[in-house]
Amino acid sequence: MGYAKAMPVDTGRSALQIVSLVKANGELELSVASFAVPQPGPDEVLLRVEAAPINPSDLVLLLAGADATKLEASGTAERPLLTGKVPSTASLTLRLGHAVPVGNEGAGTVIEAGSSPAAQALVGKTVSVAPGSGMYAQYRVVRAEQCLPLNAGASAVDGASACINPLTALGFVETMRRERHTAIVNTAAASNLGQMLVRICLKDGIPLVNIVRSAEQVAKLREIGATHVCDSSAPTFLADLTEAIAATGATIAFDCLGGGKLGGQILSCMEAAINRKVTAYSRYGSATHKQLYIYGGLDTSPTEFVRNFGLAWSIGGWLVTPLLLTLEPARVAALKQRIATELTTTFASPHTQRVSLTEALQLKALHHYTKKATGAKYLITPNS
Amino acid sequence: MGYAKAMPVDTGRSALQIVSLVKANGELELSVASFAVPQPGPDEVLLRVEAAPINPSDLVLLLAGADATKLEASGTAERPLLTGKVPSTASLTLRLGHAVPVGNEGAGTVIEAGSSPAAQALVGKTVSVAPGSGMYAQYRVVRAEQCLPLNAGASAVDGASACINPLTALGFVETMRRERHTAIVNTAAASNLGQMLVRICLKDGIPLVNIVRSAEQVAKLREIGATHVCDSSAPTFLADLTEAIAATGATIAFDCLGGGKLGGQILSCMEAAINRKVTAYSRYGSATHKQLYIYGGLDTSPTEFVRNFGLAWSIGGWLVTPLLLTLEPARVAALKQRIATELTTTFASPHTQRVSLTEALQLKALHHYTKKATGAKYLITPNS
Repeated sequence: MGYAKAMPVDTGRSALQIVSLVKANGELELSVASFAVPQPGPDEVLLRVEAAPINPSDLVLLLAGADATKLEASGTAERPLLTGKVPSTASLTLRLGHAVPVGNEGAGTVIEAGSSPAAQALVGKTVSVAPGSGMYAQYRVVRAEQCLPLNAGASAVDGASACINPLTALGFVETMRRERHTAIVNTAAASNLGQMLVRICLKDGIPLVNIVRSAEQVAKLREIGATHVCDSSAPTFLADLTEAIAATGATIAFDCLGGGKLGGQILSCMEAAINRKVTAYSRYGSATHKQLYIYGGLDTSPTEFVRNFGLAWSIGGWLVTPLLLTLEPARVAALKQRIATELTTTFASPHTQRVSLTEALQLKALHHYTKKATGAKYLITPNS
Repeated sequence: MGYAKAMPVDTGRSALQIVSLVKANGELELSVASFAVPQPGPDEVLLRVEAAPINPSDLVLLLAGADATKLEASGTAERPLLTGKVPSTASLTLRLGHAVPVGNEGAGTVIEAGSSPAAQALVGKTVSVAPGSGMYAQYRVVRAEQCLPLNAGASAVDGASACINPLTALGFVETMRRERHTAIVNTAAASNLGQMLVRICLKDGIPLVNIVRSAEQVAKLREIGATHVCDSSAPTFLADLTEAIAATGATIAFDCLGGGKLGGQILSCMEAAINRKVTAYSRYGSATHKQLYIYGGLDTSPTEFVRNFGLAWSIGGWLVTPLLLTLEPARVAALKQRIATELTTTFASPHTQRVSLTEALQLKALHHYTKKATGAKYLITPNS
């Protein structure tokens, strides 16, 4: 058939990966463990992992709620061991006693492939992938269909974060269109994801309201061309937000804080903006549907809202993976193609620090990358 | 054409109705005012209103948030006047300065009809209707299509509450089916609406979890055949609720409290019940969608929830009117037919007190029917 043949790999060999273990008594153990590299199945490929980012969602799996500042280090330089305590095992029942391989996404080179044409077509290519776990490893077997092949010349470092944030930002726009909204509100908008969304919306002509929490972040977003940027630390925040929503007509918002009052405030400001144009009183509020999606939990406090936005509203959890499963495969392929084409522009992900697998479990590094506010983005390079 | 002809009505005459006026300075005035009875249009009918209930949603329009215990009485026995103060006019802009006719629903006799066949067909019939306002009046013009004709022998008192609660309870079931759930959780389940839902679900074989707040209410619901009744005042409430949800498989809940923590607790218990059957850990929680609809605001405190139920969830406002607009007209007609057929059984609405228009604005009566906890259901009989 003329497919490129992969080099044979010694699948009897072992490799290293970062695992997170929660014991029944609530003890947490983070370590670098060896594992037997599996053989790819017919529709699978074997990746040599070259770069994998540390994102907030990775920390959920890694720390299982434990306080990173209270972990204790032992073990050796080659085999570090961090131990701690999780606050509750209630929602962890299904992972208790299992050493869970960590690492949502990353990029690397396909060094072996299963027999299917789709798998064989990837041999030798640099691909980005987000299998959801096990990317903090020297090798990882993934399904061929999960791979996002990078364009020639793009490195694994360029593509390390090419899946989750880019697909999430594009997913916001897909969700907006599907649910017939025409403009978006986004929170924590100075994040890497937020900046991607600014660039997508500028390119696609979608009005966007960015919520940030400092004057510095306002300046940062203005610099990349954002029009509406509201600073939640400003005394005029709610008035500013209402103005921006009125100017854009935004009726859908994506919130990665989750906790606190901000989500409800967005709905209240939407209602106030909508009611500027309503001429007849209704005790049930405006008939325009207002949607808030919570896709993160940067604020771990309870979510609280005052119901002053009528009855045409919804607050829901949002996750990119189930969304992609509901899109046509051709649409998903088009989104991935766009990411590959605009990898170093629209979807650029700067990483400020690189560490090996063992360095990632040094307390100093861990304290640095678990601090949410810093903006320091770590990249694990398992084979360097 | 052979349609029954209505008796001519002197439409130059005036009649009485209860109106609620909020002034720009926040002053509230409740009074019995005269108004010119309008002539029905081609698709309309003129009702002599014989019975109209006082429901919580009527109090929203009547009081506009004012404290009922602080109203002051003046005026005469024939023309009572109650005055008070609303806490805020912020969400009332569109009604400021307008004397709003009150009364969501009621029943009466069609004494005149427009020229359309649908309107003429109703002449002389006793009908129930929920136009959303103006039913605390001696006469009311409504659209023919809004009317629910009662069966022969049913009185206006029987049919006074035949629209809102019955259609709401049936609407829960319609929503459950449309969104592919198979069992329901309902709060404040000892209410008249809650009891209707118990009877509907028993008849239709739908598993139902009832949440009440006292042992007396548990007994009340057991008496009419409810299987799963959870008492939120019991120390074992959350465990009881999780058990009942696990037993029924309920993944949709309707909450008329709105404020407080109960709604979020229901979602948490749903997640716990679902996770009993899940075998693989996911940091994103179960993949089963959990839905909470808020359709009332008995608890006016902020809504608060802890997000420990994954990302497959939604909380939204719910209202029966928009739902009915999305159903096929034949389906709506079938629901109304069912209400007429089961008016004094499934959909029985006991009313304990009857008052005239002027009596409804006596302070003693008002203090009684504005107390949420009593269960005393008032009926206004404007023409008796």
